[in-house]
Amino acid sequence: MATFARQGRKIVAIGRNYAEHIKELNNTAPKEPFFFLKPTTSYVSSGGKVEIPSGIIAHHEVELGVVIGKGGRDIAQADAESHVAGYALAVDMTARNLQDQVKKRGLPWSAAKGFDSFTPIGSFIPKDKIPDPYSLNLSLKINGAFKQNGSTADMIFKIPRLIEHISSIMTLEEGDLVLTGTPSGVGQVSPGDSVQCVLADAAGTELAALEFVAVAREGGYQFKPE
Amino acid sequence: MATFARQGRKIVAIGRNYAEHIKELNNTAPKEPFFFLKPTTSYVSSGGKVEIPSGIIAHHEVELGVVIGKGGRDIAQADAESHVAGYALAVDMTARNLQDQVKKRGLPWSAAKGFDSFTPIGSFIPKDKIPDPYSLNLSLKINGAFKQNGSTADMIFKIPRLIEHISSIMTLEEGDLVLTGTPSGVGQVSPGDSVQCVLADAAGTELAALEFVAVAREGGYQFKPE
Ligand SMILES: [Mg+2]
Ligand SMILES: [Mg+2]
Ligand SMILES: [Mg+2]
Repeated sequence: MATFARQGRKIVAIGRNYAEHIKELNNTAPKEPFFFLKPTTSYVSSGGKVEIPSGIIAHHEVELGVVIGKGGRDIAQADAESHVAGYALAVDMTARNLQDQVKKRGLPWSAAKGFDSFTPIGSFIPKDKIPDPYSLNLSLKINGAFKQNGSTADMIFKIPRLIEHISSIMTLEEGDLVLTGTPSGVGQVSPGDSVQCVLADAAGTELAALEFVAVAREGGYQFKPE
Repeated sequence: MATFARQGRKIVAIGRNYAEHIKELNNTAPKEPFFFLKPTTSYVSSGGKVEIPSGIIAHHEVELGVVIGKGGRDIAQADAESHVAGYALAVDMTARNLQDQVKKRGLPWSAAKGFDSFTPIGSFIPKDKIPDPYSLNLSLKINGAFKQNGSTADMIFKIPRLIEHISSIMTLEEGDLVLTGTPSGVGQVSPGDSVQCVLADAAGTELAALEFVAVAREGGYQFKPE
């Protein structure tokens, strides 16, 4: 599954899975998990460029990604772990001003979350390298300054519950990625910014790193707020 | 591209692209096209079963699908036709009560549109079989009675504009499907119903047929309206 980003067919991203992040955006906590889809064309590898479309306020959301190994539907929580191949460090880039507008209008989030290069992704981490996915540190710096620095211990819905929920609606396939939500500290990434993310274990040992630079998108969609 | 449903990585579905359908759902007409993503796990071939999840009011939306041949980004309207491999008759099944709830809350449409079997799809139709995609009749019958019977002449945004818009946000790839919106007449499909769709040209010649039966989904997600 090292090639999940080339072979997978979907990215299922969970919203509002950390209490502090829910508060910072003045949202309410969900009673059950909810998710949105990001296209696999939004992947960009570590070391690459995230393109900020014209008029878009783009926010970083650093997240733990779960890479599906064995596909399935109606996966029980007790069986969920056997469907996990491993993990990846990811950023769920979000066009926050466009998202705010579509939320007000009851419209889909697909464009706000799905621009090309809006899912920077680190290398595949085999499952055996992460015996406990709930004791990890997720951090993100912009130009050297910490912006996000959270623990996966604070996830509201744990990974088996997410896999159970998603697979009760849509079949999960080998290579699919589940983004598990972001801790607090989200904020703007502007053209020229350099972004560094680290996934570390409880002892502080680095498990994965992910970095990118932000640039202005040439051409493409222009957002004009109404 | 006959195998687009097995090989494609995304389904990009346009909302509100026929004026009469916008009116019937009391929606407002968009100033630019908007879209949502459906997972490719929602495909079901003609002759198959559409599973209605527990508690869901599922609506049919018969649509003309455009199958992408050559991928690209920032595709100009003048070049769009060269990126089209062909067409397919499709139904964009929609969990209308769940969609109504998430629209009110500003939440994503991904679950409401993305259940397994919620994109019944006909055979690939090569582009040369449809010289004019705006003179087609799209019809849908339930248990022999007409429910939808519209013309692609009534699309608000034409296919080149849709391809230009989508590809200004996300790269289109070979095998991707663009659903171009539904004419009026959407309504409920219930377990036990038999659904027949036909795509015909201006002379009334059948270009494609698509049929399925609806059954109750066993297990899976249970919708409890709040
Ligand atoms: Mg996120
Ligand atoms: Mg959506
Ligand atoms: Mg539709």
